[in-house]
Amino acid sequence: MEKQLDVVIIGSGTAGLSALGQVRKRTDNFLLINDGPYGTTCARVGCMPSKALIEAAELYHGRTLYEEMGFYLNGSVAVDGKAVLKRVRRLRDNFVKGVKRSTDNLDENHNIPGRATIKSPNLVEVNGQLFKTKKLIIATGSRTVVPGPWKELGDLLLTSDSIFEMEDLPESLAVAGLGAIGLELAQSFARLGVRVTGFDALHTVGGLTDPEVGKAAAEIIGREFPVHLGASVKLKKTLNNKVKVSWEGNSITVNKVLAAVGRRPNIDGLGLENLGVELDKRGLPPVNQHTLQIGDLPVFMPGDVNGRAPILHEAADDGHIAGFNAMLDSDKKHCFCRRTPIGIVFTHPNIAFAGSRFRDLHMDDALTAEEDFTKQARAKTAARNQGLLKMYASGVTGKLLGAEMIIPSGEHIAHMLSWAIQRGLTVFEMLELPFYHPVIEEGVRGALRKLASQVEKRESGPEVPLCRELPNGCLE
Amino acid sequence: MEKQLDVVIIGSGTAGLSALGQVRKRTDNFLLINDGPYGTTCARVGCMPSKALIEAAELYHGRTLYEEMGFYLNGSVAVDGKAVLKRVRRLRDNFVKGVKRSTDNLDENHNIPGRATIKSPNLVEVNGQLFKTKKLIIATGSRTVVPGPWKELGDLLLTSDSIFEMEDLPESLAVAGLGAIGLELAQSFARLGVRVTGFDALHTVGGLTDPEVGKAAAEIIGREFPVHLGASVKLKKTLNNKVKVSWEGNSITVNKVLAAVGRRPNIDGLGLENLGVELDKRGLPPVNQHTLQIGDLPVFMPGDVNGRAPILHEAADDGHIAGFNAMLDSDKKHCFCRRTPIGIVFTHPNIAFAGSRFRDLHMDDALTAEEDFTKQARAKTAARNQGLLKMYASGVTGKLLGAEMIIPSGEHIAHMLSWAIQRGLTVFEMLELPFYHPVIEEGVRGALRKLASQVEKRESGPEVPLCRELPNGCLE
Repeated sequence: MEKQLDVVIIGSGTAGLSALGQVRKRTDNFLLINDGPYGTTCARVGCMPSKALIEAAELYHGRTLYEEMGFYLNGSVAVDGKAVLKRVRRLRDNFVKGVKRSTDNLDENHNIPGRATIKSPNLVEVNGQLFKTKKLIIATGSRTVVPGPWKELGDLLLTSDSIFEMEDLPESLAVAGLGAIGLELAQSFARLGVRVTGFDALHTVGGLTDPEVGKAAAEIIGREFPVHLGASVKLKKTLNNKVKVSWEGNSITVNKVLAAVGRRPNIDGLGLENLGVELDKRGLPPVNQHTLQIGDLPVFMPGDVNGRAPILHEAADDGHIAGFNAMLDSDKKHCFCRRTPIGIVFTHPNIAFAGSRFRDLHMDDALTAEEDFTKQARAKTAARNQGLLKMYASGVTGKLLGAEMIIPSGEHIAHMLSWAIQRGLTVFEMLELPFYHPVIEEGVRGALRKLASQVEKRESGPEVPLCRELPNGCLE
Repeated sequence: MEKQLDVVIIGSGTAGLSALGQVRKRTDNFLLINDGPYGTTCARVGCMPSKALIEAAELYHGRTLYEEMGFYLNGSVAVDGKAVLKRVRRLRDNFVKGVKRSTDNLDENHNIPGRATIKSPNLVEVNGQLFKTKKLIIATGSRTVVPGPWKELGDLLLTSDSIFEMEDLPESLAVAGLGAIGLELAQSFARLGVRVTGFDALHTVGGLTDPEVGKAAAEIIGREFPVHLGASVKLKKTLNNKVKVSWEGNSITVNKVLAAVGRRPNIDGLGLENLGVELDKRGLPPVNQHTLQIGDLPVFMPGDVNGRAPILHEAADDGHIAGFNAMLDSDKKHCFCRRTPIGIVFTHPNIAFAGSRFRDLHMDDALTAEEDFTKQARAKTAARNQGLLKMYASGVTGKLLGAEMIIPSGEHIAHMLSWAIQRGLTVFEMLELPFYHPVIEEGVRGALRKLASQVEKRESGPEVPLCRELPNGCLE
C-alpha cells in the first residue's frame, strides 16, 4: 500500500528537525524517517559534550597562573578522569533529552525509525514499505571519516563518536587531524594531564588560512603539547595493545588515537542515483544554497549531507529554508542570502574567523591589518595576553571584509565582526561605535584604525559620530 | 609678563590628553597645566588596577567549581595578599608609564606642574604667572567623595585612591556604596578571602535600573558576601583601631572601610566664577555635550569635570571633541552626536547596560523581554549558568532600544547590543545576523525572538536574510 504524503523528511538531526518545524506550521501530513540514534550530532557527539570538556579543562588550566597572580598551591589539584567524563556525559544526556522532545510526541504515522531508500523524487521506501510524497527533504547528516587501514586498530582508535564514552582518561593520546574538532579535544585532554601529541597533514591548525595567524596559533597551541604539522601519520597496533604512530622517520607509542580528519555526508545506499540528476564525484547532487532545492526537483537537501558547511547554525538555517520552500505552493522558491560566515574553534585562546577568509580575498583590493594581543592591556590584567588578530577591509570602499584570529574572547569578537560585515559597515563607521575600557574589543579598534589609515590619508578628527540633524543644543 | 597662547589645557588626565592630541595637530603654541600626579585616573587608581585585581580574584574563585567539574584539591590554595597587591601595582605602574609617555616629552614651555586659576575666559594663572590664551580647555577631572564625618577615620577609611596601596589584604572590609567601583572591589576582596560586607543606600547594585535585573544581581552577588541594600551606614572608630559600622539597629566591626559613594568634579578654587556664565547648584557651568563648549565662550570642558559620565571612553571622546572644536577657526563648532551609551561593571557575572536604561523607557511604546541564564546551554557547560538579560525594543518600529543584564560575558554582549542600537537595527534585522552554537549570544537571540513576537504576529518563516538581488543560483 502506498500512502500519499505532503512531505517526507529523511533524518531527524538538526537540519531535519529545523525543516520539520517549518513543515508542521503548514501540514500534518508528513513523515519523519530516522536511522540510528535520535538526538542531533551536535548534542550527542559534537558541540555540546566537547564544550563541557573544554570548560572543565580551561578551569583546571587556570591553576597554571596561580603563581603569577599571587596564589600558591599547598598540595595538588587532582583530576578524577572518570568524574570529568561522567559530568560530560550527564550534561550531554540532558542536551539530547531536550532535543528529543521535538520527536518524542510524534506517533508512528509521523515518525518511523528505519533506513530510507529513495526510489524516485516522489517515492521513498523504509522497512519494506513504500511512501508516495509530494516533497522530499533529505537531511541524513554526516559521519566521521576513518581511513580504511586505521579501522584495524579497533577500539584503540577513537572518533568524536566514541571519545566521550571512555570510562577514564587515557595515559597518552595521538590526535590525527587538527581542525576544529581535533584541536579542541587535543588541547582539552592535554590540559587534563593526558600526554597528547597532535598531527596534521596540513601546515595550519583550526582551519586558519591567514599564514600569520596560523603560525601564531601553531606556536601558542604548541606550547601546551607537541604539534607536528605537514605530517602524514601511519598507525600500527603493537603487541601490547598500544598504537605506534609513525611519521617522517619518527615514531611514538600511545594508548589511543583520535581520528579527527573530517566528516563525510551520509549518502551510502540512500538511492540518490534515483533522483535523475547528475551526481558529482563525491556522489552528491547539485544543491542551491539559497533555496536548498536540488535542481528543479521537489527535493531539498539541508544540513551536513549537502557537504557545504558542517556546523550547527548553518544546518539549522538549511533546514528552515528547505522546510519553508518545500511547503510553498508555487514552483518559485524563496531565495535566502544566508548569514555572513562565522567559525569558532573553542580552544584557549579562541581561534575564529568572520566573513571572508584570508585565502578568499582579492589581494589587488583588500587591505590587511593586525593587532598583537601580547600587548593588549585588558588581556594583560588577566595574564592571558597572547594571540594575533588580522582584519581585512576593502581599499576602495573601506568596508570590513573579514577577519581571522587566535585571541582571548575570540568567540565574541567573531560575532561582533560578522555582524558588522553582514550589515556592510565600513571601518570608519565601526570606529564610531562604542568601545568601553579596558576591554578586548579595544584590540579590534587598534586593527580598525590601521585599516582606516590605509583607506584614506585624511587628517583625523574625533572618531565620534557627527550629528546628522542638529540637536537642540547645537542650534546656536 | 603675559604670554599669548593658542590654547591652555588645564589637566593632563584622559580628557586633557585626548584634547592635547587634537590640539597638537594644529598648533605648537599650547600650554598644559597639571596639578598633582601625572597619569590618568583610569591608569592610576581606576579601571586598570581594579581589572588586575578582579582577574586575580576570578581566577582564584575558579577553584569553587573543582568538585562540580571532576577535580579535587589535595591541600589548599593560599592567597599571598602581599603578592596579589604587588602584582596589581606592578601592572598599574606599567599602564601609568604608558600614559605618561605623551607628556614626558613636553618641555617647560608646554607643560607646567601647578594649580591653575581661571581669571577670565582668556587668562589663566599658575604658580603666580599669567597666561593669555585664545582658547581654554578645562579638564581637571574628578575625585572620590568622602562624607565629612567619615574623614575622622583616618587611614581606616579607604577610597579607590588608597586601596591598592595596602601592603596586605585586610581581615575584614565594609564597602559603603555598591555602584560599579564598590561592587567590583567588594566582590574581588570577598573572593580573595577578605570578610566583606556591602552596603548601599539605594535598593539596587551596580547602577541597574531594571528592578528584575537589579533583584537578580543583588541575589547573585549576595551569595558571595552579605549585601545590605537601602541601608545608610554610620561609621565610628573603636578604641582598638577598628571601625564600627551601624545601620538600622545592626552593627558590625571591621578592620577597614572602603568609601565608594561616588566621584565629584574637581572645581574648587578653579575660578569658574570668573567665566562670566551662570553656574548651577553644583557650581558647574553649562556645557554642550555635542560640542563640549561652555555657552559661546572660547572655553571647553571635557571629561569627568563636566559631571556627565565619569567613564574613560566618554572622557576621551569629550577630550577629542573639545580639542577639535577649540582649534576650529570659525565660530561655528562641530556637533558630535556621541556614541550609544554603554556601561559595564566587571563583576562575575558581568553587570552591564547598553542604550536606553529601563528607567528612561517610554513605557507606552517600549516592549521588554527577558532571558533566564540559569538555563542557558553554553553557560551550563561552564557551570556558570546564572543571571538575567532584559532587552527593550520599540513596539512601533521594532528597533532595539536598550538592555540591562547580569550575565556571563556581559561585557561582550553589551558591546554587540550597543553597536546594534547605534546602527538603528530592528530585532528582525538582528535575528538575521550570525549566531554560532553553542554561545552566550544565543541567549540574546532568545530575548530577540520574544521581542519580535510582540512587535508582529506574523507567521514566521526562516530567520535568514532573503536575497535582495537574485544571485546566480536563483535565476530559474
